[in-house]
Amino acid sequence: MGKIPASGQLFIGIDGGGTKCRARLFSADDKILGTGVGGPANPLHGQSQAKASILDAVEMALADAGLAGSEVGNLIAGMGLAGVNLPSLFDVMDKWHHPFKKMYLTTDLHIACLGAHNSDEGAVMIAGTGSCGYSFVNGKATILGGHGFPFGDKCSGAWMGLEAVKAVLLASDNLGPATRLDDLISDHLQAKGVMIVDKMGAAKSSDYAQLARFVLEAADLDDEVAVRIMQEGADYMSAIAGKLWETAPGRMSLIGGLSGPLTPWLKPDVAASLSNPISQPEFGAIYFARQQYALANAH
Amino acid sequence: MGKIPASGQLFIGIDGGGTKCRARLFSADDKILGTGVGGPANPLHGQSQAKASILDAVEMALADAGLAGSEVGNLIAGMGLAGVNLPSLFDVMDKWHHPFKKMYLTTDLHIACLGAHNSDEGAVMIAGTGSCGYSFVNGKATILGGHGFPFGDKCSGAWMGLEAVKAVLLASDNLGPATRLDDLISDHLQAKGVMIVDKMGAAKSSDYAQLARFVLEAADLDDEVAVRIMQEGADYMSAIAGKLWETAPGRMSLIGGLSGPLTPWLKPDVAASLSNPISQPEFGAIYFARQQYALANAH
Repeated sequence: MGKIPASGQLFIGIDGGGTKCRARLFSADDKILGTGVGGPANPLHGQSQAKASILDAVEMALADAGLAGSEVGNLIAGMGLAGVNLPSLFDVMDKWHHPFKKMYLTTDLHIACLGAHNSDEGAVMIAGTGSCGYSFVNGKATILGGHGFPFGDKCSGAWMGLEAVKAVLLASDNLGPATRLDDLISDHLQAKGVMIVDKMGAAKSSDYAQLARFVLEAADLDDEVAVRIMQEGADYMSAIAGKLWETAPGRMSLIGGLSGPLTPWLKPDVAASLSNPISQPEFGAIYFARQQYALANAH
Repeated sequence: MGKIPASGQLFIGIDGGGTKCRARLFSADDKILGTGVGGPANPLHGQSQAKASILDAVEMALADAGLAGSEVGNLIAGMGLAGVNLPSLFDVMDKWHHPFKKMYLTTDLHIACLGAHNSDEGAVMIAGTGSCGYSFVNGKATILGGHGFPFGDKCSGAWMGLEAVKAVLLASDNLGPATRLDDLISDHLQAKGVMIVDKMGAAKSSDYAQLARFVLEAADLDDEVAVRIMQEGADYMSAIAGKLWETAPGRMSLIGGLSGPLTPWLKPDVAASLSNPISQPEFGAIYFARQQYALANAH
C-alpha cells in the first residue's frame, strides 16, 4: 500500500489457522497499512512451520506497506493462533524468541470473537474447515467443541466430508441408502467405491473439507443422506449456541466458510439470535494487543 | 524348532497386517518348522516397511527352524497382505524383486478365508483393529467394508475407540450423555476433556483400537453410550453377514480379536450361522501357495 506513517507505534494483527496465516499491519490510528498471507500456523501440526508461516505473513505485510523487513523489531504483535487452547502449545509459542518488540498471544477463537463484536465480550460459533463455539464474558473464556479431526468438530467442513465419504462407501456395499453424494464425490475424486480409499487414504481435514460443498449441494436437492448430515451438524451447532447463550455474552456471530449455507439449517430461534460479525479476526488481534499493551503500561 | 527336513520343498506362509507380519515355515508334508514375527506389513502405510517386515519375519522363521538365512531362495512363499485389495498396491508388491524361489500374492482376507475353512470356498468376517467381510465362491472374491480408518471399518476396534473418544468429548461439553467411558478413557490416557485431544491428536487406528476394550467393559455394565456403539457396530456386521450369505459360501467364520465379545451382540440368526475357524491365516497362505504352484506346474 506504500503509505508509511510519519510516526506512531505500528501494530501487526496475526490470525494463524491450520491452513493459512493472515497478518495485517495497522498504524497507531487504526489504518490498514499492509497485508500478508503465510502458510499453516497451527503449532499442533508443527511449531517450526507455524513460526515460519507467521514470519512470512509479517514480512509480506511489511513489504506491502513499503517498509523494510527490519521494521519487524518495532512492531507490537497481537497474535491469535489455532491450537494454543492446549496449554502445552500455548507455552511453546509464548516462549518463542520472536523478533517483535512485543508479542501478545491468545487463541484464534479469542481474536475472532473480539473482532466480530469489536468489544471485550461476546460469543462466536465457527463453521469452516473446523468447528467450535466460544464465548468471552467477564474475562472468562468458554470453549465448546473444537476438538479437531477426526473425533470432534461436528458440523465442520471436514466432518461433513468425512460423513459423506462414510455414506458413499456404505452405499457402495449396498449397506447404506443410495445417495447423490456417490456421483458427486466419485466425479470429484475420479474414483468409485474402494478406489475412494486409495484417494482419501492419507487425506487431511482440509481435504475432507473440500467435499463439504457436495453435501450442501445434495442437501439442497433433498438427498436423504445429505439432509441427515446437514441436520445432525446443524443440531449440534444449535445446541452449542444454547450453551453459549447461557454464558450471557450479549452478542453472538456465526463465522467461517460454512456460516452462510448453514444458517437456514439451525433452529429458527438460534438463527434469529445471531448478529453479523463487525470485523475480521486480524482486527480482533489488534484489539487484543492494544488492550494488553495498555494493561502492561498502566501505572 | 530345529527339525530340518531331509528333503522336499519348503513353503513359507505369510500373513501381513497393519500391525504385524507373521511367517510360518512348513515342510512339504505340512509340518510347522518355524515361526517368525515382523513389524507392520500393510503396503498402504509404506511399501519399504512392508517388505522389510516380511523379510524380518521370514528370517526369524528360518532361524527358528535352524536353517540358514540363505535358504530363503529355496522357499515358495504364499503371502496374504492387507491393502493389496487396492490394485495399485497389488501391482507394487507383485512386482517386488523378492528373494523367494516363487511368491504367490493375495489379500490377507483371502488367506484368512482359506485358513478358516481349509477349503477353496467360504466366508469370513473380521473384527479386530479393522473390520471387513469377505467371501470367496467359485473363484470370485466379494469384499464388503474394510475401507479403513477413519471413514470405514465400522465395528472394528479402531472404530469403537474413535466413537468412544467422540462420545467422551461430547460429554465433556455437556452436549452428549454422561458415560462410564469418560472415566475409563480418562484414566487410561491420564487426560480429561480437551487434554484428550493432546493425547490423541496424532493417534493411528491401532491407538484407537486400544480403547475398544473400554467400550466392551462399559457396555457390559449397560452404559447407554457404550451399548449404542456396540449395537451399531454389531448391526453393521449382521448386515455384512446377510450380504455374504447371499454369495452362498457354504461356511462362515467370525475372526479377529473382537470376535469373542462381539458374537453375543450379533443378530441371533447370524450368530448361530457362524462356524469356528479351522486354522490360522498363515496356513491359508500355504494352502494358496500350494494351489497356485500346482496350477502353474500343471501341464
